Amino acid sequence: MAGKDLPVSPLAVPMPAMPPIAGVRLGVAAAGIRYKGRNDLTFMEFAPGTTVAGVFTRNKCPGAPVDWCRTALKSGKARGLVVNAGNANVFTGKPGREAVQATADAAAALLGCKPKEVFLASTGVIGETLPHAKLTAALPALHGQLSEDGWDGAARGIMTTDTFPKGCVRKALIGETEVTIAGIAKGSGMVAPDMATMLCFIATDAKIPAAALQAMLKKGTDASFNRTTVDSDTSTSDTVLVFATGQVKHPRVPAEGGAILKDFARALNELLLDLALQVVRDGEGAQKLVRIDVTGATTARSAQKIAMAIANSPLVKTAIAGEDANWGRIVMAVGKAGEPADRDLLSVGVGGTWMAREGGVVPGYDEAPVVAHMKGREIEIAVDIGLGKGKATAWTCDLTHGYIDINGSYRS
Amino acid sequence: MAGKDLPVSPLAVPMPAMPPIAGVRLGVAAAGIRYKGRNDLTFMEFAPGTTVAGVFTRNKCPGAPVDWCRTALKSGKARGLVVNAGNANVFTGKPGREAVQATADAAAALLGCKPKEVFLASTGVIGETLPHAKLTAALPALHGQLSEDGWDGAARGIMTTDTFPKGCVRKALIGETEVTIAGIAKGSGMVAPDMATMLCFIATDAKIPAAALQAMLKKGTDASFNRTTVDSDTSTSDTVLVFATGQVKHPRVPAEGGAILKDFARALNELLLDLALQVVRDGEGAQKLVRIDVTGATTARSAQKIAMAIANSPLVKTAIAGEDANWGRIVMAVGKAGEPADRDLLSVGVGGTWMAREGGVVPGYDEAPVVAHMKGREIEIAVDIGLGKGKATAWTCDLTHGYIDINGSYRS
Repeated sequence: MAGKDLPVSPLAVPMPAMPPIAGVRLGVAAAGIRYKGRNDLTFMEFAPGTTVAGVFTRNKCPGAPVDWCRTALKSGKARGLVVNAGNANVFTGKPGREAVQATADAAAALLGCKPKEVFLASTGVIGETLPHAKLTAALPALHGQLSEDGWDGAARGIMTTDTFPKGCVRKALIGETEVTIAGIAKGSGMVAPDMATMLCFIATDAKIPAAALQAMLKKGTDASFNRTTVDSDTSTSDTVLVFATGQVKHPRVPAEGGAILKDFARALNELLLDLALQVVRDGEGAQKLVRIDVTGATTARSAQKIAMAIANSPLVKTAIAGEDANWGRIVMAVGKAGEPADRDLLSVGVGGTWMAREGGVVPGYDEAPVVAHMKGREIEIAVDIGLGKGKATAWTCDLTHGYIDINGSYRS
Repeated sequence: MAGKDLPVSPLAVPMPAMPPIAGVRLGVAAAGIRYKGRNDLTFMEFAPGTTVAGVFTRNKCPGAPVDWCRTALKSGKARGLVVNAGNANVFTGKPGREAVQATADAAAALLGCKPKEVFLASTGVIGETLPHAKLTAALPALHGQLSEDGWDGAARGIMTTDTFPKGCVRKALIGETEVTIAGIAKGSGMVAPDMATMLCFIATDAKIPAAALQAMLKKGTDASFNRTTVDSDTSTSDTVLVFATGQVKHPRVPAEGGAILKDFARALNELLLDLALQVVRDGEGAQKLVRIDVTGATTARSAQKIAMAIANSPLVKTAIAGEDANWGRIVMAVGKAGEPADRDLLSVGVGGTWMAREGGVVPGYDEAPVVAHMKGREIEIAVDIGLGKGKATAWTCDLTHGYIDINGSYRS
């Protein structure tokens, strides 16, 4: 299904069975945006009354669909979502804005709603005008085929060079009532001359006010997608949207959310982290999934900065690719973060073995379990700063020849 | 001479003839720190009255020699420099501090000066105790052989896996009197399990108060070494030191420097930039030297942040390795910098051809010169932000399979 014939990531996990979410009908079609012989257009219809929350790339040069969604989000209401793969509609100027408007208009006419109740995302080539006539031509027939069972197809339809489809389902209780959350994501595949773009679309049958949904999503992405990295670059198109259809009857959720959403937030956080880790597992060229636990920093925020500095270090990531438990590079990355750290209090462990403690290598530490751990698919790095109680976790993948192959290939 | 048999960088430049600098005697020896059959110990003696300035890594976990130099710098006086390759004396705790003290004591005894007038630098393996007895045993014989003609040997003696020695000479006028500045550097070679470390040692026969020298060095490194990057990682050992022996008679330079140093500052800046670019030319796996000119930013500082964001982007660097003029990734990197930018005012050029202008691809731009330029060894990227008058330049190299080979190799 991918744009290039890449081997499936050795870190791939199976796509789960995706149940219907009451109030969501969805489907895919082949609009021929760029790929031949595969679905590249995904359409979702949401029941009247659906609320929406979203978070987007912090890149200052975002694509036209991101601008559109940021504006549309203000009402907190959604009736539709249109996603295309093959063209990112980024850096396309006025024609890009026209493409967004035309797509939203066409979808809104089919759904009987306002254009600003239609959300949009695009992923693929940059700097080429999106051929939106192909999208709008394909939408009416696709609308006629929407069903509640389309999640698996949608997970595949939004892929670019992802090597496996990504989905996750969680159940939660609101009061005594069970609700369901389903999500799909695409990750760091790239389509020359594009860059890694992460898209994630989630729906639930719960009835949650938009403001409460937005607060939970912000907190959840901070602890998931914002704790993961493949190569430190920031796409122009990254988008996470959550839709709440309100089709299940449960105790009323107040506008500000609160305690009644405790279990829902737990489930949403789990789902966000699961999908974020699937994206890292499909990082370009990834052979190993790396978890970095930082403890003992002065604050949680400081711990997070240190964890991300380690996760983004090319020297750490290449060492892991070489199965080398190179704690010297980890010390370097801690120091590079610019956060409070004292070399002589620092400890570094790999796979549960402390190799360096309080400023020096542990004399005679047992290398055997460390060597065995580094040969595995899932690598655990622990760093204790020794200064306070701040802690954080980040995830990354190794930096391999595969990354260079995928991103350094000649443009035809 | 290198620790591994790496092919010489295709971007290498010839080592210039290095003239004597009055007041500097130097030499090299094989102390057997780590390498067999090569010089790994460099010793410089400076005439009484020599002043010194220095800048060091911003890494919060620096090596013991960096701590030593920072303290020693306070007097502004120098009589000696001892540099070893093969062991970085980083993350070595108390034995590391003892090693620097012992080395400085031994050198000071030979030079007849205070230990704190001896400067130290180490590059190589991390986390192993520096066998300083080997250094101090080799120093007396080496001291007996010091001469004014040792610059070329020193440039080679400080190498780790640099693939070519790096030197530069500049002349300057102070009043009507010609003075000479000579410098050597080592760059981003690495010795498993070490990381890229940059060392640079400069001497001049001019008589310049330490405070004025420090101010010039700070400004010069901000416009040279701090505008270059190989992989965004920050070594624990980066050190630049300048020694002024005062052996040439010229009009007196006041403590605060000022106009009389204008030509000297020009020459020092040229030398710093020349050496910094030699380090990039020897970046791990580098096949292309990349210059990034940012104009039209709101401020010079903003322009510098944007230029460095482009220079550090793995996606930009892999595209250049693939000879792909991928302006979409450049736009992404501009947006990622977090500085003021307006997508619709942005222009991107490669090799003098504007490919994207004011928010979109330039229709029908001539691809032929761009394709030809990307096949060359020296790549020029121009970005105009379109907002103000701030400008800056940064330099980097491409990100290739060679980088992964060098940094991802198994540790034996």
